[in-house]
Amino acid sequence: MEKMGILGPRGTHSEAAAVKLNEFSAKKFELVIFKEIFETLNAVEEGKVDAAFVPVENSLEGSINITLDTLAHSDSFIVTRELIYPVHNHLMAREGVKLSAVKKIFSHAQPISQCRNYLQKNFPHAEINPVASTARAAEMVANFETSEGCAAICSERAGTLNGLKILAKEIQDNNSNRTRFLEVRRRPKNFNVYKMMGDKNLIICQIDGSKPGALYEVLGEFARRNINMVRIESRPARTELGAYIFFFDLEVDNFRRLLFESVEAVRRKSIWLKNLGIFPVLKA
Amino acid sequence: MEKMGILGPRGTHSEAAAVKLNEFSAKKFELVIFKEIFETLNAVEEGKVDAAFVPVENSLEGSINITLDTLAHSDSFIVTRELIYPVHNHLMAREGVKLSAVKKIFSHAQPISQCRNYLQKNFPHAEINPVASTARAAEMVANFETSEGCAAICSERAGTLNGLKILAKEIQDNNSNRTRFLEVRRRPKNFNVYKMMGDKNLIICQIDGSKPGALYEVLGEFARRNINMVRIESRPARTELGAYIFFFDLEVDNFRRLLFESVEAVRRKSIWLKNLGIFPVLKA
Repeated sequence: MEKMGILGPRGTHSEAAAVKLNEFSAKKFELVIFKEIFETLNAVEEGKVDAAFVPVENSLEGSINITLDTLAHSDSFIVTRELIYPVHNHLMAREGVKLSAVKKIFSHAQPISQCRNYLQKNFPHAEINPVASTARAAEMVANFETSEGCAAICSERAGTLNGLKILAKEIQDNNSNRTRFLEVRRRPKNFNVYKMMGDKNLIICQIDGSKPGALYEVLGEFARRNINMVRIESRPARTELGAYIFFFDLEVDNFRRLLFESVEAVRRKSIWLKNLGIFPVLKA
Repeated sequence: MEKMGILGPRGTHSEAAAVKLNEFSAKKFELVIFKEIFETLNAVEEGKVDAAFVPVENSLEGSINITLDTLAHSDSFIVTRELIYPVHNHLMAREGVKLSAVKKIFSHAQPISQCRNYLQKNFPHAEINPVASTARAAEMVANFETSEGCAAICSERAGTLNGLKILAKEIQDNNSNRTRFLEVRRRPKNFNVYKMMGDKNLIICQIDGSKPGALYEVLGEFARRNINMVRIESRPARTELGAYIFFFDLEVDNFRRLLFESVEAVRRKSIWLKNLGIFPVLKA
């Protein structure tokens, strides 16, 4: 059985999404839990697991920076699948705790942001504590000496695993809260990305930002071939302010040759370019 | 004396940067401390302070999402100055704690990311705890019952205010670690941004992402008028996956008329566009 690394502990949204991915897969994975996203990806690089399954973007909060940065700063990875997973955040607490008595709220920074409007409106004076994961938040709230006034924002699974009850359901700021996950594998030697099949192509490149219009010229290579760019994201190159790396998600249609041409044209206009793979997009 | 809201508590990088901004200012500000960035900006909206001074981007870690989102989702703000401030992160602990004994590290999520390589290399097994601010981390480490194995990543000021000593100096992943701060004020009624003076123009707009090439066309308005786009950033529109808001930092040169023309042309191609202001860029 192949092994797939995910962000733990048990009960995180990552685990729930990985279980869903397994349902889509003919060959099932054994899930291996890691404490951090970069550890999960490192484990792929080092051959400790066959694949990693990591979040890359949330529809409310935006990119998961550590995932983007790790993919950009290594040559070891290809992306083989994407899963779009709906996120449900609940406010959960120990039996007997009343909603009106909540004074301390624990969760991961990402769900805290996703529930920002709810928290501002309902708990303007509560102490908000970002911790390592939603599952860790549930565990902390379950194990404090006193449960008085403490609640966690987490998935139903994480709360239930720790014996918590739902105080308020679906508290995220709107109902189109989805997270995109990528299945990442080690890049085989002399790998040809253009033989991969799927709906989407992810490329990462650094463009000379000191030239006005450099990004415009790059986008021109896609536009003139009618390539649909589904997403553009920029991240600091981590060298100096003003130097950026760009992430492009490109739609793959029947005219694959035109897509490949545009990517190679962009490569010639870039300081460097990495083609992370062509892959199917699954919806949970 | 005018009041300026900043992210507290005392000792954060935000406070140090605000003190530096005061040195640049003919009229000095009284600093008012807030617990969260959105609270700081809300205080401007509600007239509780005259200005807010908030971080917007770090050269290693990228955008401060809450700042971008708050500016994008309100019509109440203008940006009046920018300060580029060098960040120094140190590993600090109570007197007598040895570097080799450190097992638990506390800091804000942003500096933790900024020191990612250092931490992976030197403390692969330490427990890393993200808390609300670097100053709060220093305070926690100073006040734990036992100081054994605990350290904070913080500014020298935050550590010293809490009686901590430096264990390791300048642990950020490289030395070009800088944070950009914006001075934000309430937008006067019928305000004309084009009368403002400065080096940079910040505009925010939502483009119809379902049209292939829509972003390319927008960038064309800048490119054909030789407008230098210093930065492009995208954030989720918070409605659905795939809908994005774009932030453009444009260089203001002697040909202001061409800049204004391009911005108005982009407005016609956008679902909506907000011109946040033209402002000087200061370097600390």
